Amino acid sequence: MEMNKQLASAGNKRIALVGAGNVATHLGIALQQAGWQIAQVYSRTEASASELGNRLQVPYVTSLEAICTDADIYIVSVKDDALPVLIPELVKGRNGMFVHTAGSVPMKVWKDHAPCHGVLYPMQTFSKQKPVDFSKVSFFLEGDGEETLVQLRELASSLSGLVYDATSEQRMALHMAAVFACNFTNHMYALSAHLLEKNGLPFEAMLPLIDETARKVHDLAPKAAQTGPAIRKDMNVMNKHLDMLADELGLKELYEKISKSIQEL
Amino acid sequence: MEMNKQLASAGNKRIALVGAGNVATHLGIALQQAGWQIAQVYSRTEASASELGNRLQVPYVTSLEAICTDADIYIVSVKDDALPVLIPELVKGRNGMFVHTAGSVPMKVWKDHAPCHGVLYPMQTFSKQKPVDFSKVSFFLEGDGEETLVQLRELASSLSGLVYDATSEQRMALHMAAVFACNFTNHMYALSAHLLEKNGLPFEAMLPLIDETARKVHDLAPKAAQTGPAIRKDMNVMNKHLDMLADELGLKELYEKISKSIQEL
Repeated sequence: MEMNKQLASAGNKRIALVGAGNVATHLGIALQQAGWQIAQVYSRTEASASELGNRLQVPYVTSLEAICTDADIYIVSVKDDALPVLIPELVKGRNGMFVHTAGSVPMKVWKDHAPCHGVLYPMQTFSKQKPVDFSKVSFFLEGDGEETLVQLRELASSLSGLVYDATSEQRMALHMAAVFACNFTNHMYALSAHLLEKNGLPFEAMLPLIDETARKVHDLAPKAAQTGPAIRKDMNVMNKHLDMLADELGLKELYEKISKSIQEL
Repeated sequence: MEMNKQLASAGNKRIALVGAGNVATHLGIALQQAGWQIAQVYSRTEASASELGNRLQVPYVTSLEAICTDADIYIVSVKDDALPVLIPELVKGRNGMFVHTAGSVPMKVWKDHAPCHGVLYPMQTFSKQKPVDFSKVSFFLEGDGEETLVQLRELASSLSGLVYDATSEQRMALHMAAVFACNFTNHMYALSAHLLEKNGLPFEAMLPLIDETARKVHDLAPKAAQTGPAIRKDMNVMNKHLDMLADELGLKELYEKISKSIQEL
């Protein structure tokens, strides 16, 4: 994996967005703001297609056949398991570059279908409600050849300075590591919020600690940054906590398993 | 729990620091910078006592009997299970206000010993290597009466604007919730770093995602902010991840348990 420090300005290529979920929405908005021409939006469902189409003020379609044939780049952001069915249909009768944005789908899904293909994986957590600052998103690129990579770098580096090359295997590992660092982390926040709420305490009181915990690993490796009863093997405190945790939601078991894992690492 | 918005300047009371670990060190430095007079440092071990004493340029002692008898406030930051033995020894022959800084120790440990007592709990993760910005630390106070609380508020609000009252029960719940939001979260970072390292990828590529995950819960409740394969019930991706996780460190089981907990919440 090598970081590409080059920065490029948006080209005047025409982009078709295939999919209108969270990733397509935020990526589409950001690409348009960076000066790229979004030619069209496709979604299977009318509501999603029209919402994103209207937001970007571009035409939208709801059938694969209606996707324009003259786009330069087709960016496909659909559910992972929709890809195998969608890809042959989409590529048929169309040229241009085809890329998907999924962390856990290998590039080879394109191989027998599209001559020019690649992957543009923005590693970030996208919620519909919250705007995304793409300058703080790491992009991981893979292409069928150098020419494709050059185009993908132009695209990604118009949005972010954090642009890396990564193989399909590396991207899969990144995606799995991201599940731990983002989804599982967020779940720890959610359980914390649940425990606070049960005791009449506001979650906002926890935010400074959450922020510092994230800030700390910019300077220290997470292993070196660990504090608390588990790493101190403070059985006294751990037993008090286990006694307090009613066994709804399997919280007791989770507390024990994660504490054990902290001690083992 | 009520937030105390008042801000106060440091009084000229003399403070003795009993303990010289991470909490005592960071708190001592911050209090001194805020204008409080640190009269003395105590630690059982010569190395810790001298390190903090020298850092603050104040006398240090290593026996309980040598602790000064004329301090106005004794701030006790020692291991939780050292408190029951230490407290009667410390209080004997001394006046002033006695407070401890532990999340999970009830205020009543002082009750039969010190007439004036309370708790000053800074809810933060303290590492020796990393300076602490106390303006971003939530303090939770408990006192034997209003007079004690007034003094504690003066102390805490000279360091931070985030000062709350909390009962022993609330503090215990806060401490447990903090284990989830801080220690367990940090462990998710550590496991993520471990997975990246195993695949030749730099942890720093994960930092923007870690930051955004923390930032997001300032605007959305963690439950509403959740993304990823578990909440989508994307078994396809989850099974790929489980296949990739070698069962060292019980990672497979942890992945399954946390994913199940995400779906249950």
